[in-house]
Parts: sequence; structure tokens; C-alpha cells
Amino acid sequence: MKKVAVIMGSDHDLPVLKGAFDTLESLGIPWEAHVFSAHRTPFEAADFSRTAEENGFGVIIAAAGKAAHLAGALAAQTVLPVIGIPVKSSTLDGLDALLSTVQMPGGIPVATVAIDGSQNAALLAAQILALSDSELSEKLKDLRKQQHEEVLNKDRNLNPLGSC
Amino acid sequence: MKKVAVIMGSDHDLPVLKGAFDTLESLGIPWEAHVFSAHRTPFEAADFSRTAEENGFGVIIAAAGKAAHLAGALAAQTVLPVIGIPVKSSTLDGLDALLSTVQMPGGIPVATVAIDGSQNAALLAAQILALSDSELSEKLKDLRKQQHEEVLNKDRNLNPLGSC
Amino acid sequence: MKKVAVIMGSDHDLPVLKGAFDTLESLGIPWEAHVFSAHRTPFEAADFSRTAEENGFGVIIAAAGKAAHLAGALAAQTVLPVIGIPVKSSTLDGLDALLSTVQMPGGIPVATVAIDGSQNAALLAAQILALSDSELSEKLKDLRKQQHEEVLNKDRNLNPLGSC
Amino acid sequence: MKKVAVIMGSDHDLPVLKGAFDTLESLGIPWEAHVFSAHRTPFEAADFSRTAEENGFGVIIAAAGKAAHLAGALAAQTVLPVIGIPVKSSTLDGLDALLSTVQMPGGIPVATVAIDGSQNAALLAAQILALSDSELSEKLKDLRKQQHEEVLNKDRNLNPLGSC
Amino acid sequence: MKKVAVIMGSDHDLPVLKGAFDTLESLGIPWEAHVFSAHRTPFEAADFSRTAEENGFGVIIAAAGKAAHLAGALAAQTVLPVIGIPVKSSTLDGLDALLSTVQMPGGIPVATVAIDGSQNAALLAAQILALSDSELSEKLKDLRKQQHEEVLNKDRNLNPLGSC
Amino acid sequence: MKKVAVIMGSDHDLPVLKGAFDTLESLGIPWEAHVFSAHRTPFEAADFSRTAEENGFGVIIAAAGKAAHLAGALAAQTVLPVIGIPVKSSTLDGLDALLSTVQMPGGIPVATVAIDGSQNAALLAAQILALSDSELSEKLKDLRKQQHEEVLNKDRNLNPLGSC
Amino acid sequence: MKKVAVIMGSDHDLPVLKGAFDTLESLGIPWEAHVFSAHRTPFEAADFSRTAEENGFGVIIAAAGKAAHLAGALAAQTVLPVIGIPVKSSTLDGLDALLSTVQMPGGIPVATVAIDGSQNAALLAAQILALSDSELSEKLKDLRKQQHEEVLNKDRNLNPLGSC
Amino acid sequence: MKKVAVIMGSDHDLPVLKGAFDTLESLGIPWEAHVFSAHRTPFEAADFSRTAEENGFGVIIAAAGKAAHLAGALAAQTVLPVIGIPVKSSTLDGLDALLSTVQMPGGIPVATVAIDGSQNAALLAAQILALSDSELSEKLKDLRKQQHEEVLNKDRNLNPLGSC
Repeated sequence: MKKVAVIMGSDHDLPVLKGAFDTLESLGIPWEAHVFSAHRTPFEAADFSRTAEENGFGVIIAAAGKAAHLAGALAAQTVLPVIGIPVKSSTLDGLDALLSTVQMPGGIPVATVAIDGSQNAALLAAQILALSDSELSEKLKDLRKQQHEEVLNKDRNLNPLGSC
Repeated sequence: MKKVAVIMGSDHDLPVLKGAFDTLESLGIPWEAHVFSAHRTPFEAADFSRTAEENGFGVIIAAAGKAAHLAGALAAQTVLPVIGIPVKSSTLDGLDALLSTVQMPGGIPVATVAIDGSQNAALLAAQILALSDSELSEKLKDLRKQQHEEVLNKDRNLNPLGSC
Repeated sequence: MKKVAVIMGSDHDLPVLKGAFDTLESLGIPWEAHVFSAHRTPFEAADFSRTAEENGFGVIIAAAGKAAHLAGALAAQTVLPVIGIPVKSSTLDGLDALLSTVQMPGGIPVATVAIDGSQNAALLAAQILALSDSELSEKLKDLRKQQHEEVLNKDRNLNPLGSC
Repeated sequence: MKKVAVIMGSDHDLPVLKGAFDTLESLGIPWEAHVFSAHRTPFEAADFSRTAEENGFGVIIAAAGKAAHLAGALAAQTVLPVIGIPVKSSTLDGLDALLSTVQMPGGIPVATVAIDGSQNAALLAAQILALSDSELSEKLKDLRKQQHEEVLNKDRNLNPLGSC
Repeated sequence: MKKVAVIMGSDHDLPVLKGAFDTLESLGIPWEAHVFSAHRTPFEAADFSRTAEENGFGVIIAAAGKAAHLAGALAAQTVLPVIGIPVKSSTLDGLDALLSTVQMPGGIPVATVAIDGSQNAALLAAQILALSDSELSEKLKDLRKQQHEEVLNKDRNLNPLGSC
Repeated sequence: MKKVAVIMGSDHDLPVLKGAFDTLESLGIPWEAHVFSAHRTPFEAADFSRTAEENGFGVIIAAAGKAAHLAGALAAQTVLPVIGIPVKSSTLDGLDALLSTVQMPGGIPVATVAIDGSQNAALLAAQILALSDSELSEKLKDLRKQQHEEVLNKDRNLNPLGSC
Repeated sequence: MKKVAVIMGSDHDLPVLKGAFDTLESLGIPWEAHVFSAHRTPFEAADFSRTAEENGFGVIIAAAGKAAHLAGALAAQTVLPVIGIPVKSSTLDGLDALLSTVQMPGGIPVATVAIDGSQNAALLAAQILALSDSELSEKLKDLRKQQHEEVLNKDRNLNPLGSC
Repeated sequence: MKKVAVIMGSDHDLPVLKGAFDTLESLGIPWEAHVFSAHRTPFEAADFSRTAEENGFGVIIAAAGKAAHLAGALAAQTVLPVIGIPVKSSTLDGLDALLSTVQMPGGIPVATVAIDGSQNAALLAAQILALSDSELSEKLKDLRKQQHEEVLNKDRNLNPLGSC
């Protein structure tokens, strides 16, 4: 089974990524996390991405804040799908990271999820891998059913409170 | 080979989607375009998405403007990867469509590309399908080489103009 | 008397909705609260809305954050008036929910109130129902008089502090 | 049948309002248009709103641009539902009008629709009036069916173009 | 000497206005504070403004948050200069109040200061009154000298810390 | 009678200022226009402002675009009221000029009007001068009456079109 | 004398760069223009920057639009000063390019100028080079004098128009 | 060796500037900090800048918040490179300071860094001075290597946590 790489621009992004790690773990998807900075370790970042396919990766997730170039820099080096997580930092409420990640020029796509949306990044990676892995696909469908049940349970518990 | 579905919320979005159609065509990826509105034909949209996997689709691309719910509504019905293209409309310069598409809540990811970024949506779909299609993967790598050559050619042509 | 439905996308939105519950209660309007997610329980949400009229509802209030599709998804299934409350979440200060709720395409309106403006959502629902309920209309006029008096009282209490 | 008032802050807003006029007309809803400025004719605006109920109006639609106070000023004088249309002007792409209209303080709601969304304002007014007018309710349901058919027709016409 | 009126839309704005009260007090300008809401007490607000000139006021300061109509509503009723203070509330960081206050349509100006900028509102009122009050003008010039000295003192105290 | 100075940062701002010139002219207020740049002629700008009071000016209007420092730079040199007009330029729709003009730090107020709002800048200057000029005050009240009549006339002309 | 490199992400940026070319030319600064894309030719871009110092360059100017990574990618490879020009593209009015260029994380600075501000980018490069080139410094001071004279001339020509 | 001046608009900006002071100190660059306000001490600010070159300064760093005119005001008085640090204040998350600093009109550039980005301001100053100081250039290259090593170390320490 292909692995998912989770690359962060700084170890400050670790708390945001917990949702991704937990989701990958719960789905039994092999993954590897790395700290590579698009600006402080550009060659290592590029090198990782360029060799990711041959090293058994199927999807790359990249999380970065501010002028968030990491996802785009990795995407430039591979035709593997790259998922970008814009990370909120101390100013501008994540808008800078969102625009820096999603507004990629033609030719090099980055699949962008919500600001700090690391759980969805992992799910998207899983959905991509599930295209050729029917077992994973079933797990994802089960997870959807669970989500569905949880909402319905919350609704049932709410009713006594909400009815007149 | 799995097909790519290109769903638009209105036929006004057709010009924006030309970049996607051309890219899919040039890569030899089978595709199908539909007009389904998240608000005016919610059941047909949901139905299409719910049966997309069994109907041979591998990836769904959804383009919509303003309060752009289409990609999210389709994503809610399938575990296939759904790619969202926020479309610029007459006000707010596409910011409304971008935020409505990318800021999905946990559980249901949408892989968002740039505002009006339909070429990248098609490339992202191709990169996803190429994970299990080495021929397509080669085509994408060739395309990257072409892009690379084009930029270098532009640089060569520019030089006489640019040097002192 | 027709009931008001208060639908929230997640039970995290409950604190924001307190203002709506209290207002409906104080006006003696029958109401019912539910948790339905546009993305995790799309059919239940659609179903509730499609049958709301025959189940005795007159107005639907929908509260959701981020890419807030809930109000629009409900509005797509009914010709009852649907009121949207954009909910502020951890990033972008509610702008994402506001634009996702208010910028609806032509054909399916959502009556949007302020970010986290649940009291006004309930008042708007009451004003709508009061069109055919003169008693409720009187209550609303009384409430306006109370609001008016409260401001004048605050002004009177302020004066000693404010005068030179 | 109760009338709909369509108030505009300036006759420059007339083109934007065409969508509202046409929709009201096609639904057979009696309506009346006025130019009243919240700032240049505040008493006339207030007076119109305060007497709107006794003059046979059921809903007020207010369209204004920039620091768009008109809808709020009218809403302050009546318990009839007031629908606000933020109008895009020469700067800021309508964001100023949107925030000035939707961000009303607690106590005085304005049902806000999309920037320049006059068709939806008229539909929302119709949906409100249809609560006690089953014939109008049927017309709205027919309109939804028409919209639904139009999208499906567009989809059918698109297919030859879109298929491979 | 003409008085300055300080009108707030809600007594929640009192803390923001402290800077204005202190400045007016320290300059010996007679002032009066009131709570009037553009939406909950529209007639009292209008009445105050319409009679402000004959009641001895020279300048009106108005502070309000969210869809901040108060300054504009007062300005509509008088040719006295009206100064608007946009107040930051719990969402959108004051941008809604700023645009609602400053983007006034042609004909009715509001002299807008910074978000929560109540000290400057008072100084601007003083500068306006000082046009026909040379004593006040001197006080303002002295205040400028004090401000000037304070900055130079801070610079002198900083130097030991700042030099190498 | 005190004069109004109209300072622009560049002669490109002349078209925007026509509304101010016409208004001052129609009210019979003596005025003088100058081109002074906060950045290219800082001393001349400062000098003009510092000597404006002794040269017979009562109010200074300053118009500038982009990082619009002009109003603030003039305000720093005088206790005369300074009115700032943010001018829209080719990017960011005037938001840069608005924030650069209105968000002044404590101590040095700028009375900011709407983006490109030069007519209101002139009216505000007139309202300030009218505090000690009852004739000008009457003219302003007449102008308000005219505005009022114009709106009512537009309403009357509209009615045949608007009624059913 | 050290050369200035002007790197653009696409030849579509050429019109924006004319101001930079003209300014460098008029100051007699040797320069060289190149098209390198951070995403389509990442190695060539990195290589150019890494060897720029030894190839006789003193300053690098980088212009790019949308998710504008170019300046940051070049800055990561050199300790030469890198100046970023955010280029306005078809959506979001240049805000995406501005935030992607200026919000660089700690460690790798980019000296950012205004959106489409290529003339200032060239002047900033000249000011940097002038630190060790007194002749260039004199040219820059002469240019400032010219700018100063031009504004004063415009003011003189304006006066007849502006005076009453 | 030329000195770096660090000018702040208020001593409230001192905490933000710590990153700049530490960086300059660690690189052995002589520096001097001052408090000068563009608005409260405009002449001292202008005077400092106009004489900075002859007083041995090579680069000026200016930090200010809100309508941040300081960097531009200093830049207007010198052909030394001026680096602007937009400082986040209590409203608008630093966007006002960013636009006020970076959107300078043609002729007077300000090299803008990220909001609160004082470390990068110091590094940029160092990179500029290093153009004629090979020892400083070596220190900067060493610092880059350290940054590089730190990221690689973080990656190594992360791996056990990140691997499956």
C-alpha cells in the first residue's frame, strides 16, 4: 500500500497536524511525517518530493503558514497529488496561508483544504488512495456512516431540549 | 480507465471550464460534463454523485460561483475525490466562491484549486488517476517537461530584450 | 400556529443559538431544534426541509459555520422562508460563513442575518409568522416598545455621568 | 392580498431592481416602488415604513449601496419583514453595502440577500406571503419545477458537447 | 461655548468612549453623553440631532458597532459636523462598523475616525470648535507640544537601551 | 471668510476632486487647490499646512491614493481640521487608501470621508465653517432641502412605473 | 558595477515590468531579465539565484502573480537582497500575490514593494547599490529633485484653475 | 561599518522589535534605536532621516502600526534603503499597517517585510550591508546553514514520532 507523506514547514505546525495523524492511523494508512521548509531546506524539500513516488508514497500532504509556499514547492517536483493545508498564524487569521496555497498558477495544482483542516487533508489522501484499494474504500464508507450516525444521535439527544 | 465527471452549477460556467476540457482531452482521459445545480436540482446532483463510482467515474470536478455549495454537496455523497473550482462572478472577485468551496467542515473534504483554475482541476484529476495508470503518469511527466521547456524558451527569447 | 424549526449543522452551534431559543420561547412561538448536517446527513436534512410545510412548520432557521451550506441546502427543498445564521468559527472571523450563506444564486433565497445573530433570526421568523397572527404582531410591537424604553432608561441613567 | 414595497435609496438602483420587478409581476404579486433615501428623506422613509402595515403592505424590500442604511432604517419602524439588497457601487465590490445591511444589531432584523440579488429578494417576499396564500405557494412550487427543468434541459443539451 | 454631544448606540460602547470623555474634559469643552440607538430609538436620535444646534451643540460624536448607522442617521438631521467612531464588536474586527460609517453616499458627510478611535474623535471636535475659539486653539497647540515632548522623552530614555 | 485648501497628492486625482470644487463653488466658499506630495514634496506639504491658519485657511481637504499619507502628514502640522479623501487606484479598490487615511494613531485626527467622496469632503468643510457663519449654514440647510426635494421628485416620477 | 536581475514568473508580467526596465536603464544600472517559474522551472530558478552573486549580480527583483512564490524561492538560495513585486492577476486584485510575497516566515526576507510597483522595485535596487556607489547615489538624489520639481510645477500650473 | 537605524513610531512597538535587535546584535552590526513619530514628531523624524547618511547609517528600519506612515515619511527624506515593518495593533489584524506601508506611490520605495516581521527586517538590512562587507556576507551564509541544520534536526527528531 502506498504511503502518505505529511510534510510541515515548521514543528510549530505539529498541533494542527494531529487531526491528520489520527485519521491516517485510524484508517490503517502507512504514513511518514517530516519537517522540511520550502525556504530553509529547499533542496531537501524538493528532493523528498522528486523521489517520493519511487520511495513508495502515493500522496503528499503539506502544511504551512503565512506565505505558505511549501505545498506548491513540493507539487513542482512530482506528479503525485499534493494536498495543501493552510495554517493560521498570529496575523491575518490564515488568509495569507490560504491564498498562498490555493491560488497556484496553471500547470502545477495543489489540492487545498480548509485553514487548519488537517483531518480533511488526511481523508482526502485516503479517498485518493481508495480509488485502487477497495478495502480502504469500505473503511471510508464506514466512517461516513459513523459520522452520519453521530449527527443523528446528537439530533436525538437534542430533541428533548429543543422541543416545546 | 476511470472517467472524470465535470459538473457545473450553471452553463454560464462553461467558458471557465474550457481549460479543464482541453486538458482532459489532450491527456486522453475519458470525461463527461453535466449541469447540475446544488440548489435547483439537488437530488439529481446527489444522485449523480452517489452513483458515480459504480458508473465508472474516478474523480469528480465541480465548478460553481457565489455561495458555491456544489462541490461540497457532491462530496457529501461519495468517497471519490471531489475537486472544487471556485468561479468568479460579478461581485467580490471570487472570494465568496473560494471560501464557500474550501472551508469545508471536518469529515467531507473538497480538493480546492484556484479561482477559475479549471486547467489545474483537470491536472489534479489526472494526477489522482495516474496513481494507478503508469501511462497517464508518463503523459503528465511529459507535460511537465513541455511546460519546463516553454518557460526556458521564453527566457531565451527574452534575453536579447532583457540584456544591456 | 405554525412552528419554527431551528436547524444547526453541529451541536457546537448550540451556545450561539441560545438567543434564538430564548426569543422564540418568550414570544410563545412553538419551535423544534434539530442537528442536521448538510454534508454528513444530507438526506435527513433535505427530507426534513421537504416535509417541513406538511409537518406544520412555517419558517426554518439554519445555523452553520465555515463553508456554511446548511441554509442553502434546506432552502433548496422548500418554499418556506429559510433564515440563515452564519456562525463564527476559529478562522476568518465568520466571513466564510457569511459569504457562504448570503451569496445564494438566483432562484433559491436565504434570508441572512448577522454573524452569530441568532436573536434576530428568531425575531425575523416571528415577524414573518406575525403577518397572519395579529396577537404575535402585538407581542412584537410590545417588544419594540420595551427595547425603546430600555434605551431611554440607559440614556437617563447615563446622564449624570455624561453631563459636565 | 398584501402588497410588496420595493424601496430604493436612489434611482441609480433601478437597473439592479429589474429582477425584483419582473419576478413580482410574473407571480402576480401587487407591488409598489419608491425612491426614499435613509439620509436625504429620513422622515418620509420612516413614515412610509411606519404606516406600511396599515396601508396594506406585507413585506418591504430595500435596496441601497455603500453605507447602506436604508433597510435597517425601514426595519426600525415596522414589524413587517424587511428584506435588504446590498447594491454594488463603484468601490469595494459591494462589501460595504453587504456589511452595512446584514450586520444589524440585536432587536431589529434585516433579511439580507446576495449583493445585487434582487430576484431572490422578490422570491423571498413571495415565500413569506405564500405562508398564508396557498395559490401563491403553488406558483412558487411551479417556479421551482421550472427552474429544475431548465437545469435538466441544459444538462441534456450539454451532453453531446461534454461526452467523449 | 458650544457643547459637544457624544452619542453611543449602546451602553456597551462606554469603555471605548472613555478616551473621548477624558480628552473633552481635559480641554475644558462642555459635553453631554447620550445613549440613542438608530434602530431602537430612531425618533429620539433624530430629534436630538435636529434640535442639537438650537440646544447649543456645535459638534456631534457618534459611536456604534456592526452595521453602524448611528452617525449617518444623526448626520441626516443636522448641518452640524458629525464625527463617527466605528466600534469593534465580536466579529469582523471592526471592518463592518468602519465601512458602515465611512462609506456615506453623497450629500450627507460623516467625519470618520479610526476604529475605536474615540480620543481622536474628541480632538477633531475640539479642532473644529477651536476655529472660532482662540483659547481652545492654544490648548490644542499646547497638547501637540506635550505629545511632541513625550515622544522625544521616550526617545531619550530609549537611547541607552538602543545604542551599541 | 476662511478659505478651504484642497490638496491632492498627484494631479491624477483632479477628476475625483471635481465634486469638491463644484460644491465649494456653489456654496460661495473661497478655496485654493494645490498639488503637494507627502513623499515627493514633504517640506512644501508640511510648510503649507503649518502656515495654513495664518494664511487664512479654516479647513484642509487632502486627497490621495494607495498608501495615502497626505492627510495625516498635513494633520500633523496644524490644529485646523483636516479632511481626508481616500482615492481608489488601480489595485485593491481603494481599501489601501481608506485604511491609510482613517486608521490614524491617537493624537492626530483625520476626518475621513468615503473612497472618492470628494463632494462630501467639501460639504463637511462647509459644515465646519458654517458653525461661525450663519449665512453658510442657511445655504447648507437649503441644499439639504433641495436634496430632499430631488428624492421626492424622483419618487413621484417613479410611481407610475412602480405601481401595478 | 553589480548587475540587477529582473526575474519574472511568466512573460505575461512583461508589461508590468516596463517601469523597472526604464528606471534601471535611465540610471545606467546594468541589468538582465529572465523568465523563470518557481513551479515550472524550480531548479533553473534556484540555480540562477544560488549563482547570482558569483555571476556579478547585486540585487534580484522578482515579479509574480497569484500564489507568488518566486521571490521567496529565489531568496531561499542567496543572501543577496531579493525584491518582490506582487503582480495583479484576473482575480482578487493582487491581494493574493501581495500576501504570498510579503508574509515570508522568519529567516528568509523578501523586500516587498506595492502591487505592480515595478518602478519602485528598480529604485529600491538602485538605492541598495548606491550604498557603495556614490555616483549612483548622486543620480538618485537628482531624480528625487526632479520628482520634487515636477510636483511643484504641477502645483504652479494648477493654481490658476484652483484659485477663486 | 555603516550602522542600522531602528525607528519605531511608539515605544509600544518595542516587544515586536526584539527580534530585530537580537538579530543585529548577533551579526555584530552596529545599530541605534529611536522613537520618532511621523505624526507627533514629524520634523525630528524627517531630520533624522535626512541626515542619516552623513551620520553613518546605511539602512533604516521603521516599525509602525495602524495608518503606518513612518517608513514612507523616512523614505521621503533619504536615498538610503528604508525597510518597513507593519505592526499589528488592536484592530484589523495588521492589514491596515501592511497596506499603509507597502502600497507606496511611484518614486519613493519602502522595502516591506511581513506583519511584525522584525527579524526579517534585520536580516534584510544585513543582506544589504553585506553587499560591500564580505565578512558579514559569510556570517549570513553561516546563519542560513544553521537554519538549515535546525530544520533537518527537527526532522530527525520528528521521525520516530512520525513513522508508522
